[in-house]
Amino acid sequence: MSEIPYKIYLSENEIPTAWYNVRADMKNKPAPLLNPGTGEPLKAEDLYPIFCEELSKQEMNNDDQWIDIPGEIVDFYKMYRPSPLVRAYCLEKELDTPAHIYYKFEGNNTSGSHKLNSAIAQAYYAKKQGLKGVTTETGAGQWGTALSMATAYFGLDCQVYMVKVSYEQKPFRREVMRTYGATVTPSPSMSTNVGRKINEEFPGTDGSLGCAISEAVEAATSQEGYRYVLGSVLGQVLLHQSVIGLEAKAALDKYGIKADTIIGCAGGGSNLGGLISPFVGQMLRGEADYDIIAVEPASCPSLTRGSYVYDFCDTGRVCPLAKMYTLGSNFMPAPNHAGGLRYHGMSSIVSQLYDDKLIRATSVKQTDVFAAAEKFARVEGILPAPESSHAIKVAIDEALKCKETGEAKNIVFGLTGTGYFDLVAYQKYNDGVMDDYIPTDEDIAKSLSQCPKIG
Amino acid sequence: MSEIPYKIYLSENEIPTAWYNVRADMKNKPAPLLNPGTGEPLKAEDLYPIFCEELSKQEMNNDDQWIDIPGEIVDFYKMYRPSPLVRAYCLEKELDTPAHIYYKFEGNNTSGSHKLNSAIAQAYYAKKQGLKGVTTETGAGQWGTALSMATAYFGLDCQVYMVKVSYEQKPFRREVMRTYGATVTPSPSMSTNVGRKINEEFPGTDGSLGCAISEAVEAATSQEGYRYVLGSVLGQVLLHQSVIGLEAKAALDKYGIKADTIIGCAGGGSNLGGLISPFVGQMLRGEADYDIIAVEPASCPSLTRGSYVYDFCDTGRVCPLAKMYTLGSNFMPAPNHAGGLRYHGMSSIVSQLYDDKLIRATSVKQTDVFAAAEKFARVEGILPAPESSHAIKVAIDEALKCKETGEAKNIVFGLTGTGYFDLVAYQKYNDGVMDDYIPTDEDIAKSLSQCPKIG
Repeated sequence: MSEIPYKIYLSENEIPTAWYNVRADMKNKPAPLLNPGTGEPLKAEDLYPIFCEELSKQEMNNDDQWIDIPGEIVDFYKMYRPSPLVRAYCLEKELDTPAHIYYKFEGNNTSGSHKLNSAIAQAYYAKKQGLKGVTTETGAGQWGTALSMATAYFGLDCQVYMVKVSYEQKPFRREVMRTYGATVTPSPSMSTNVGRKINEEFPGTDGSLGCAISEAVEAATSQEGYRYVLGSVLGQVLLHQSVIGLEAKAALDKYGIKADTIIGCAGGGSNLGGLISPFVGQMLRGEADYDIIAVEPASCPSLTRGSYVYDFCDTGRVCPLAKMYTLGSNFMPAPNHAGGLRYHGMSSIVSQLYDDKLIRATSVKQTDVFAAAEKFARVEGILPAPESSHAIKVAIDEALKCKETGEAKNIVFGLTGTGYFDLVAYQKYNDGVMDDYIPTDEDIAKSLSQCPKIG
Repeated sequence: MSEIPYKIYLSENEIPTAWYNVRADMKNKPAPLLNPGTGEPLKAEDLYPIFCEELSKQEMNNDDQWIDIPGEIVDFYKMYRPSPLVRAYCLEKELDTPAHIYYKFEGNNTSGSHKLNSAIAQAYYAKKQGLKGVTTETGAGQWGTALSMATAYFGLDCQVYMVKVSYEQKPFRREVMRTYGATVTPSPSMSTNVGRKINEEFPGTDGSLGCAISEAVEAATSQEGYRYVLGSVLGQVLLHQSVIGLEAKAALDKYGIKADTIIGCAGGGSNLGGLISPFVGQMLRGEADYDIIAVEPASCPSLTRGSYVYDFCDTGRVCPLAKMYTLGSNFMPAPNHAGGLRYHGMSSIVSQLYDDKLIRATSVKQTDVFAAAEKFARVEGILPAPESSHAIKVAIDEALKCKETGEAKNIVFGLTGTGYFDLVAYQKYNDGVMDDYIPTDEDIAKSLSQCPKIG
């Protein structure tokens, strides 16, 4: 067996002390956010009523290659970082492939995913600005869990609007948030204007992420000392998630390993963007080349079947317009158990990198994803999140290609989280009653036709 | 801040290559198992029809101080070990204590607990003996999950009898086991004689651990190529769990830290026994002294309120007799959410160490345990299992005593697992509807009066 250990751990003093901002190295910058009313590009100040000031600045920062990570955040990172880069020896053996497979595992914290990397940063800046608390929405609950852990740490109030159907069907996620002191409100609620309005119009509605966003934004802007925070899609989130890629690259460098293929699942794009940032940076600076693959669900294929246009970031159409690969803000993804990948659009940064052909994309079917998840779980011992399993599926496919060609490629993928709260989906798969939903061309064309006609 | 990192990680080549058998250093050996029919001491061969041969030998081994860990098991350990020894800086700050608090965290694997340390060993010996599979029972599901991961790894069949009420109320644990390929049968079932008999006598029964054990033993002995395996209480299990203590001691030694107080929760006693073995070994050899505390629930206080007598290991009274601190094999612990601590007896090894005053014991109330769990979760970021939280509660108490006396003691405790599948209990605590059940003296006297009159 090779000298490379099963788990490459960096030491705590190798935790990054600055986030890498890939936008600084991009020749074609991501298109600016636009005011949905005027169509004018937004400035950082325009975001201050909604986001913390420092985070608003990070959102607009296309220039600084590195942004220092405050010491308090690094200290928190020490509780669960550096995360291990794992050599998947058992999976390689199972596949009988000459490829070397590595995964960066972000699931070893109670939030169960990479979301905590940005949650703690956003909570820190809220605390630093002297705020009382933050509001957010959560669907499946991973982001809400991560945020409640971060706000508990800094003693901030945390108000989470949880899509009603998830609130009722995922009581365990809700209880984790409550244990961390968050207030969790099923959305639509009767505590906001928009919630009351939706409840009146659609009595007994199950709620939607778009509605929960609208409630969280209203709650933030109508309470003194509160701001709204968001766990994906934004440039600031992708920036914070660069710790994933920086640690992965440092671990590879430590053993002289040159990645050939880098794979990540893509919903809003922040974990993928964070993982690939330092590697794409090398490509942008002409220092190295990689085959980078974004994996999305066939049920919500924004990169592979969407259009690169300006669109609303939210279903409620209250947030700024972003230029991105999108299926249209009123695209309703069919039931898909990878809740974290059910977003109609894609990070502006990832969209631009894709448009510039620095990365490629593929989509995979749900049942194939769960088959890969089960295979992985049985040999590598980790029960993966459905989202993360999209990357597993493609990593296995790439490793099997190597088996055909005899190439000993180094394949690196992001294992963003664990599936402990996704067992209803695993049960469906185990019972053989899981379906593959794929939208028709007509479905996509229809929702795309309602994008604003800008740019 | 000290030079001691948040997490002390050993390297993979520091994973123990031999288990430490504390029995070899004990002057007063644990009393032998007795044949329940004849009252005669059992020999290893007597156990072969039920347990694997190698495991039967380990069960009886009072002589060998070290037992080599086969390379295949060490390789599996590399997937999730060494587990970190964590310095609880944030908890210390929260408590404002001069004490230094460390915890050995065994929850970073999909089984969510230390159970995997023995499951993989038991699966290995079953495979080595050429068996087709193993049977077991599970209550809350942690042991069944660990075993299904281990059998999946070695390609063995795994038949789990799960207490019916848990099977129905904990579907997620069940699905993890199924994902790992185990067959999970609600107990009492109609597939064993004992199951059919109990179903006839008590139609609609919820099942019990005692009944599930009886079914698993029958299934093992009635199928060619199967043996029964058990996740706690046994000497072999405590032996395998010594990896916890060996790693903890190595990590402390690496930084020149001398533990003063060592704390573990105690149900069957195997995690506690594994954690303390190397330290107790030093005490037995006169090399060092420690204050070792076993923490049990007030609802099931075998050490603090039981008797040290021969008793049945199972409610069904089919297993051998063991001399141990017990509340009587038909003691029914009142509802308690730390399912792993609801055992009427205690490991014979731990019992003897307690009787010899090498360790002390204390019991804690459930609501106090959850208050400690919540405090810990909010500052240390890990949602602990209710079982593990018994140790947290007492670690906090000891640290607060240090605050009074000004002593900078080194307190080490075992954090055996995570609470991701225990959120019904957390919900009860969050909703303020959790009760503290404490058995009366009469309850205990009554069940103790039914112990066999031996020794």
